[in-house]
Amino acid sequence: MGCVQSFRALCDRPKNTNVRISLPAVCFVWQIAMIILFGVFIRYDEESDTHWIEHRKKENISSDIENDFYFRYPSFQDVHVMIFVGFGFLMTFLKRYSFGAVGFNFLIAAFGLQWALLMQGWFHSLDYTDGKIKIGVESLINADFCVAGCLIAYGAVLGKVSPVQLMVLTLFGITLFAVEEYIILSLIHARDAGGSMVIHTFGGYYGLSISWMLYRPNLDQSSNLQGSVYHSDVFAMIGTLFLWMFWPSFNSAITDHGDGQHRAAINTYLALASTVLTTVAISSLFQKHGKLDMVHIQNSTLAGGVAVGTAAEFMLMPYGSLIVGFCCGIISTLGYIYLTPFMEKHLKIQDTCGIHNLHAMPGVIGGIVGAITAAAASEEHFRGKKTLSPFLNQRLINTFDFEGAFKNMVPTKQGGHQAAGLCVAICFGIGGGIIVGCILRLPIWGDPADDNCFNDEPYWELPEDEESAPPILHYNNHMANKDV
Amino acid sequence: MGCVQSFRALCDRPKNTNVRISLPAVCFVWQIAMIILFGVFIRYDEESDTHWIEHRKKENISSDIENDFYFRYPSFQDVHVMIFVGFGFLMTFLKRYSFGAVGFNFLIAAFGLQWALLMQGWFHSLDYTDGKIKIGVESLINADFCVAGCLIAYGAVLGKVSPVQLMVLTLFGITLFAVEEYIILSLIHARDAGGSMVIHTFGGYYGLSISWMLYRPNLDQSSNLQGSVYHSDVFAMIGTLFLWMFWPSFNSAITDHGDGQHRAAINTYLALASTVLTTVAISSLFQKHGKLDMVHIQNSTLAGGVAVGTAAEFMLMPYGSLIVGFCCGIISTLGYIYLTPFMEKHLKIQDTCGIHNLHAMPGVIGGIVGAITAAAASEEHFRGKKTLSPFLNQRLINTFDFEGAFKNMVPTKQGGHQAAGLCVAICFGIGGGIIVGCILRLPIWGDPADDNCFNDEPYWELPEDEESAPPILHYNNHMANKDV
Amino acid sequence: MGCVQSFRALCDRPKNTNVRISLPAVCFVWQIAMIILFGVFIRYDEESDTHWIEHRKKENISSDIENDFYFRYPSFQDVHVMIFVGFGFLMTFLKRYSFGAVGFNFLIAAFGLQWALLMQGWFHSLDYTDGKIKIGVESLINADFCVAGCLIAYGAVLGKVSPVQLMVLTLFGITLFAVEEYIILSLIHARDAGGSMVIHTFGGYYGLSISWMLYRPNLDQSSNLQGSVYHSDVFAMIGTLFLWMFWPSFNSAITDHGDGQHRAAINTYLALASTVLTTVAISSLFQKHGKLDMVHIQNSTLAGGVAVGTAAEFMLMPYGSLIVGFCCGIISTLGYIYLTPFMEKHLKIQDTCGIHNLHAMPGVIGGIVGAITAAAASEEHFRGKKTLSPFLNQRLINTFDFEGAFKNMVPTKQGGHQAAGLCVAICFGIGGGIIVGCILRLPIWGDPADDNCFNDEPYWELPEDEESAPPILHYNNHMANKDV
Repeated sequence: MGCVQSFRALCDRPKNTNVRISLPAVCFVWQIAMIILFGVFIRYDEESDTHWIEHRKKENISSDIENDFYFRYPSFQDVHVMIFVGFGFLMTFLKRYSFGAVGFNFLIAAFGLQWALLMQGWFHSLDYTDGKIKIGVESLINADFCVAGCLIAYGAVLGKVSPVQLMVLTLFGITLFAVEEYIILSLIHARDAGGSMVIHTFGGYYGLSISWMLYRPNLDQSSNLQGSVYHSDVFAMIGTLFLWMFWPSFNSAITDHGDGQHRAAINTYLALASTVLTTVAISSLFQKHGKLDMVHIQNSTLAGGVAVGTAAEFMLMPYGSLIVGFCCGIISTLGYIYLTPFMEKHLKIQDTCGIHNLHAMPGVIGGIVGAITAAAASEEHFRGKKTLSPFLNQRLINTFDFEGAFKNMVPTKQGGHQAAGLCVAICFGIGGGIIVGCILRLPIWGDPADDNCFNDEPYWELPEDEESAPPILHYNNHMANKDV
Repeated sequence: MGCVQSFRALCDRPKNTNVRISLPAVCFVWQIAMIILFGVFIRYDEESDTHWIEHRKKENISSDIENDFYFRYPSFQDVHVMIFVGFGFLMTFLKRYSFGAVGFNFLIAAFGLQWALLMQGWFHSLDYTDGKIKIGVESLINADFCVAGCLIAYGAVLGKVSPVQLMVLTLFGITLFAVEEYIILSLIHARDAGGSMVIHTFGGYYGLSISWMLYRPNLDQSSNLQGSVYHSDVFAMIGTLFLWMFWPSFNSAITDHGDGQHRAAINTYLALASTVLTTVAISSLFQKHGKLDMVHIQNSTLAGGVAVGTAAEFMLMPYGSLIVGFCCGIISTLGYIYLTPFMEKHLKIQDTCGIHNLHAMPGVIGGIVGAITAAAASEEHFRGKKTLSPFLNQRLINTFDFEGAFKNMVPTKQGGHQAAGLCVAICFGIGGGIIVGCILRLPIWGDPADDNCFNDEPYWELPEDEESAPPILHYNNHMANKDV
Repeated sequence: MGCVQSFRALCDRPKNTNVRISLPAVCFVWQIAMIILFGVFIRYDEESDTHWIEHRKKENISSDIENDFYFRYPSFQDVHVMIFVGFGFLMTFLKRYSFGAVGFNFLIAAFGLQWALLMQGWFHSLDYTDGKIKIGVESLINADFCVAGCLIAYGAVLGKVSPVQLMVLTLFGITLFAVEEYIILSLIHARDAGGSMVIHTFGGYYGLSISWMLYRPNLDQSSNLQGSVYHSDVFAMIGTLFLWMFWPSFNSAITDHGDGQHRAAINTYLALASTVLTTVAISSLFQKHGKLDMVHIQNSTLAGGVAVGTAAEFMLMPYGSLIVGFCCGIISTLGYIYLTPFMEKHLKIQDTCGIHNLHAMPGVIGGIVGAITAAAASEEHFRGKKTLSPFLNQRLINTFDFEGAFKNMVPTKQGGHQAAGLCVAICFGIGGGIIVGCILRLPIWGDPADDNCFNDEPYWELPEDEESAPPILHYNNHMANKDV
């Protein structure tokens, strides 16, 4: 922590938000690096390559139906909408940071997905025969998932960082994500279809740690822009609703074909519906006169989707999903009411979008629910009626992928592995966030001064606004008339 | 009607819009009830259950392609967008009721779909072997459809009711819907793929009857908020366009696989395109200087989709769809110009969104078109060229589902059944609406006073708006300067 | 050009924007014409007709899976969203032309797709046995594509034309498009999956030529509405993002099933990601203080999708896509900074949305990239490892459709055909645009005067805006209080 203090001293210099050199430099250098790395490493997978017709003949596949584009692609597009419109518009709620919210979200997602294809490729789909990464539509979904972790982190520092810092945050975030995902899914063999642990827990703690490192003690006094206006709240609802609606696709996008994918969608749909009701209830109950707070409706209604991410493909049961959603709506909304102010005041964590309540906490809950559901899986759902079904083993393999090195796994042990996965995600999030936060404290990134936070003005050419001008004109006219 | 009058007297008490107790209570009680009922009744269907692998072996299904998630799921997501973004944003047109429009739409849809899964399950997919309802992706689509009826009704009372009243409206609306749907589709054996009768006619008259019961005689004088501003009209166009674009998915979502599903999408696409042109024509023709009215563009352009709902899967023919759309654009726009003011003045029905022109009338037209198309179905389209095709019977079975108890049906008779179905929908809508309207008149629901209608202020924490504040500040500064 | 000058003289009459007769007349006449032509010509194709069951038996198709709705339909819906929400909202950036942007886009797209079904049907899917056009879901996608050309052209004249002119522009645009498409795809046998040439190059030059014919020399001085406000820029980002996200569907929507369709989506995804980074880089580098310009973010980020349109289904390779996107982001953004002002000042082309930078130039680049990629196709990607694969021929047939009259084609020659296709697209665009521009100069269409350009007022009933009114009221209240 001594190093943290000395950093803080080092970095107290007047701020210069001119990114005219650094932003283009970062964009060009990284994009050129991507082109070179893609040239060296990335090729089409067999379903996307012209060699498909040979492969098809060799494998004796009778029709192109087996190679059909539409077995995954609709899920990809839904996830894509969540990443760009969902996350982008969710963050437009600030009165004067909508350009930054939707624009920088766009920038870092577009960079992140290229880097994610490489990082995830090296860990998951490297073809050892020729040393190339083979990508297909499923890789695109995974890259979008990977980006989601960084966009969550952006929510914590929204309005307080420069685009150059965001590019750095994304570069490291994707890297950490790919390593963490490899450890959790491949080494520990935890299952995490919707990424409660891998995406939300990691992304949440990564962002919160960075925000803690970038703490601005005088932010509250100096900025009157940290709030919404009527229209900006409606814009944010576009983001909320597209996230909410397409979350069943998010949690089912990369699940194996068959019954698990159906369950993932159904469970997510139910958990989210349940969350809406308890969010409304708590929001009304804790406000003077029972009025609803848009912040809760925009954010906490999504917590249920995060929390069923891990268990959605398991036999969570419909009522189980409703219970998870029920609890998360309550916890997340209470988080916005009590925990966010507490964290800002006592823990020095300024969390602009409240990602702790929307991603970090529900993600942890999701990890725990997943561990419990997995551990309890040998129970009735996997048996036939009354007697132990001869299909039990097959069903467990289908659901938990007990194959290869893990063919001797049992559900109870799987529960332990799930819990271990959750711990890894938290450690990577906090550890990675502190390191990256240190880097972002360097005084070279063009971040705004306190009184320029939550303001598009430093980084965007803003249009003259008609709304602010006319009143004065009217006034002057009136005055002039009166004087005459 | 005497009872109506006495109710009216009873209910004239000063309004208290504080829902701090009632709203959380309703949300919690109903959500807990849902959890219990889901625990008792709802299970995964065989495609979503781990038992799928046994089922597959038993039925000798060679591959998971037969259980593919993507045979329905894309339609589900399109319908889902219509329910939450489509209906939600369509109602944001009022200058100060956007939070209520999109937020309460969200709340009641999230509650309604849970209750719909139960109600529709009891009527349609109860498994008598174990007394459980088995749900899958198709159930989710049906639940969304069911919710649409209540959201239509919300359009009539938009801005004049409390969220608690909306929850009550939804509870009864879903219940009535499920019964009505069972009568029309299962007992009467009418076909209604896109729900012209079941959803739009029912929902429209249900909402109009409730609005009639909740008539506010002095509304016009007291509220200056019943209009739009420039930006709120653009927001509403988001809703309009997502409804318009995804309507082909709505009408084809639950049609049987095969040629009927293709026809449903094509016919809806064409009818909607035709409606846009006649809506623009009438809107321009009936306004001074030929200017277009946004209300018509936002609403009447959708009438064609409602009106082909029943007949879309039949052999309506492409030109038939265009004709239906052509007429509906004219009728719906004229409805906004002449009928809505007439109904408000003479029939005491205050219809905020004009659902009579967008849903009720086009729904009735759709029912009639369906009856005619069905009755005329033995004609050429179902014959082979010139001679009576040996496939005629098979084709009729494919299109009208003449099987089981209905295997002796003929198209003419089917036309009569369609008409009977339409009558049932109207009766349920009006009857149900009057009863529910009575309940909603009780002075316990926290509805707003006349001068608080169309205003988010009673139920939402509103952000301070920069637009209204600065002028006064500017003014004061000027004054101060002058004084000096 | 003499005729152009005399036209200009003829047309200098005071403007009357009252379209109360002409707009309804055009809408009614054209819609009735559509109904008649559809009645005479358009029927369902075999997958959408009740005769499907016979066809299925004849062709010995074992299951309805071969007729599945979901093999194309998800692509159709994505494209549909691009046409109506994507193009519509992209043009809402002007401060007072959002109604016209989204509303007229809606009108001409709804008309255009009907006319496109007919025109494309006559050229591509006329069934010579009965003289009917057979339509299915793929026809709907093609109709949407066809409409895209006209919507691009609308971008050039946005805010300067009447809705009647737009209907005329669309009628001729669709007609020209269908002829040009037939020549390029069927006669010349160029491949153009994403329509870089057929849609973007044609649409771009068509719009620019019309804009040149309708040049308004005094526009700059008279209109202060040719800019954005904060909220209108956020609305425009909705359009940008939906175009950006669904562009992989656009480029892959009508590609043959199999590996080519996968490649089309992957290449487009990568090209677009790359474009975002270079657009941001150039935008920042060329602005004072390194601030980003929303115009670039809204438009140039899409150029990569245009430029891979032709080559996306070929073996462009992932790094190839990144390079194309890299270059297009730079060229398109520089186009906005230097070329658009130059064209307005020196070439008398007023291009409201900058379609030259977003569609015309990237479209030409796309055509060239396509020609090069095709010509280079006999290289390694189409061989087996080291030796000439026996599948080479099959692969080329799969990718380039070397069948029938073109079975002796070789890749090098295909490259020449691609280049010829590009020339045809440019000629049709410029030639057609000049002729249609002449027609639109006739003083009968109700176009606005210079000082009414970029203003919704002439064609739309506008709501009173609360923003402008309250300040005066406040002011008066203060005055009154002071006087007392």
